[in-house]
Amino acid sequence: MTFDDLIDRRGTHSSKWDKMEHLFGVSAEDGLAMWTADSDYATAPCVIRAVRDAADRGVFGYSWEYPEYKQAIAWWMANRHDWRIETDWILTSQGLGNAIALCLDVWTRPGDGVVIFSPVYHEFAHKIGKSGRRVVECPLARDGDSYALDLDDAQARLDGSETMLIWCSPQNPSGRIWTEAELRAVAGFARRNDLKLVSDEIHHDLVYPGNRFVPMDVAAPEHRDRSITLTAASKTFNIAGQRTGNMIIPDRDLRTDMYQRLNTLDYAPAGLGVDMITAAYSPDGAEWVDAQVAHLDGNRQALDAALNAIPGVWSMPLQATYLAWVDFSGTGMTQDEIAARIRDDARIAVSPGPSFGSPGALFQRINFATSRARVEEAGARLQAAFADLQ
Amino acid sequence: MTFDDLIDRRGTHSSKWDKMEHLFGVSAEDGLAMWTADSDYATAPCVIRAVRDAADRGVFGYSWEYPEYKQAIAWWMANRHDWRIETDWILTSQGLGNAIALCLDVWTRPGDGVVIFSPVYHEFAHKIGKSGRRVVECPLARDGDSYALDLDDAQARLDGSETMLIWCSPQNPSGRIWTEAELRAVAGFARRNDLKLVSDEIHHDLVYPGNRFVPMDVAAPEHRDRSITLTAASKTFNIAGQRTGNMIIPDRDLRTDMYQRLNTLDYAPAGLGVDMITAAYSPDGAEWVDAQVAHLDGNRQALDAALNAIPGVWSMPLQATYLAWVDFSGTGMTQDEIAARIRDDARIAVSPGPSFGSPGALFQRINFATSRARVEEAGARLQAAFADLQ
Ligand SMILES: Cc1ncc(COP(=O)(O)O)c(C=O)c1O
Ligand SMILES: Cc1ncc(COP(=O)(O)O)c(C=O)c1O
Repeated sequence: MTFDDLIDRRGTHSSKWDKMEHLFGVSAEDGLAMWTADSDYATAPCVIRAVRDAADRGVFGYSWEYPEYKQAIAWWMANRHDWRIETDWILTSQGLGNAIALCLDVWTRPGDGVVIFSPVYHEFAHKIGKSGRRVVECPLARDGDSYALDLDDAQARLDGSETMLIWCSPQNPSGRIWTEAELRAVAGFARRNDLKLVSDEIHHDLVYPGNRFVPMDVAAPEHRDRSITLTAASKTFNIAGQRTGNMIIPDRDLRTDMYQRLNTLDYAPAGLGVDMITAAYSPDGAEWVDAQVAHLDGNRQALDAALNAIPGVWSMPLQATYLAWVDFSGTGMTQDEIAARIRDDARIAVSPGPSFGSPGALFQRINFATSRARVEEAGARLQAAFADLQ
Repeated sequence: MTFDDLIDRRGTHSSKWDKMEHLFGVSAEDGLAMWTADSDYATAPCVIRAVRDAADRGVFGYSWEYPEYKQAIAWWMANRHDWRIETDWILTSQGLGNAIALCLDVWTRPGDGVVIFSPVYHEFAHKIGKSGRRVVECPLARDGDSYALDLDDAQARLDGSETMLIWCSPQNPSGRIWTEAELRAVAGFARRNDLKLVSDEIHHDLVYPGNRFVPMDVAAPEHRDRSITLTAASKTFNIAGQRTGNMIIPDRDLRTDMYQRLNTLDYAPAGLGVDMITAAYSPDGAEWVDAQVAHLDGNRQALDAALNAIPGVWSMPLQATYLAWVDFSGTGMTQDEIAARIRDDARIAVSPGPSFGSPGALFQRINFATSRARVEEAGARLQAAFADLQ
């Protein structure tokens, strides 16, 4: 299997494909699903082998977070991210949406303010709202081809009721990778305002050539007493459906807080999830990820070329992630008209920019973790849908 | 594969086998793991096929609790338990330990009393304690060969601070199946004391010939405004490691309470768990379960015959479950001496009776979901360990 082998996911209980018509009004018959963040190609052979091995044994009884699993995670962080962690620091959640919800549950109270820097993964705000906490949205500043922090502006938006900052690194959407200096500035901001610092690093493995991702804990280890890092193999290896993620917490007291919550809820990960992650975080897995990033880099260039050829449309240069962040403001159209053309003319389901916060007003997020052919098809359809602008 | 094909689970990250030495001091080299409730034989071919199919597709992206999954659950309840449920009533938890913890979290407050009838699954009391609620233990009465309810005695143990009753049906341990009259009496007791009624029916499929299991909701539908039924394919199909269970809640308000908690925590089941359950709850799965029950019935008889031949040892006649509940009180030994002989002489890891509550003082729980040969080996080892009593 290569990344270009088209798998028809329709009718396989894929949310991205099988809920598309219901949620977006784009028929799966000839529509393209480019919204929620999973990939259309198969995962790494070593991960598939782990599932097959489990099927061959045929027994799916009780298992646990066995040492090889935690060692594999630590190996991956050291080898891929130059980040030395102890296996003790690793807790397992039911994916990172669940991890964020648990962080809110453990370290904040109803009514507390929770700081986010937008545009950012829409679920941050949803989870803050659902748990009865208040979203304190701090928009990132536009800075040339990308976004930049404006911590003075952010500071002015706080009223002292804030207790947590949820940070996204690399940023979804926009694919921004933060520099060490920026990470240190954010950690300092968290300390000055006495905020727990949750760093969601789920997209850390999908980084394009010429860029270097730095974990928050590497940049700002002196802030460990308030920081929680979230990582997962789910985006990297296309196993998000298995609902398994990690919370890496160096501080013993914070770890105890979270461990007790997990223990009270009787949380234990699915055995197959643990097996898949153990198989993924390996030399074979690393080789597969390198090949995937090369494929995604080609997709990124193909999509950007097609989009940037449309007058008034501009795709932000990504440093990481397979999520293009595309500015349609130059078309002079309203969000509704842009969305209608993409849906009805191009027949593509994308994630609407406004859901990521106020800076996303005239943006769309387009997931290109699919075959090159499908990316090219999407580019051609979008060009046709906006052909009158030529 | 038959139920007698011995699978060597050692070194496969099986908690039951690979944690035995650490937890029980019984070496896996020649020890027998007969404690935690999973089975040593492979699951049904239809379930294995579902896992293989997923491996063949190779994509493990986002999925959901799709209609065929809920329809399969409803089909199973109607066909196997004469229980007609609506698919809307079904919520999914991370197994039933998690479901119990969530029920405590949603419907009780710290300090509340939670009623259990002992001897009962030790995790009921653990979860009540861990969540800061109070265990209100109501011992079942010994009644001939089994246990009986004594609701007058139970009533006298309540002080009005109780808000929930966690019921086990069939009972683990003792394998007691409750009659419709008993179930109605328990539901009436819950109403009189204004208790939420959580009925844990995880062992409902493993019922021996001549007995008939009745769901609480069938026996006492007029108490639906307070009742939550917990079911799972995990014991029935030996897929407990996949951490997926169901909460069946006919009452709309109660369902909304629980749905909101799951939603706030961003709980969504692992896709493979959903696929496995959908495959399990099928005509093929039913046929496999019938064959399994016949096998377990033979194991039960073999183990009972061996145990009852030891003077002073008596195995309670089971109506359901693969968990023998064995009374060693007639040996005149202390629990420590009994445990030492089983551990050091028989080299078997079993679940100590006292963990199930006060009536378990001189009991041991022995899991016989394994091959006939291994059950016979266990019987012979136990006879040898207590040979001086002959
Ligand atoms: C930044 C970020 N965090 C968390 C998630 C969700 O992770 P999970 O599927 O593990 O809940 C996503 C998914 O797109 C994401 O982009
Ligand atoms: C009565 C009962 N409830 C719940 C459980 C635990 O279920 P799960 O593995 O789904 O947490 C068991 C396991 O032995 C059990 O016997």
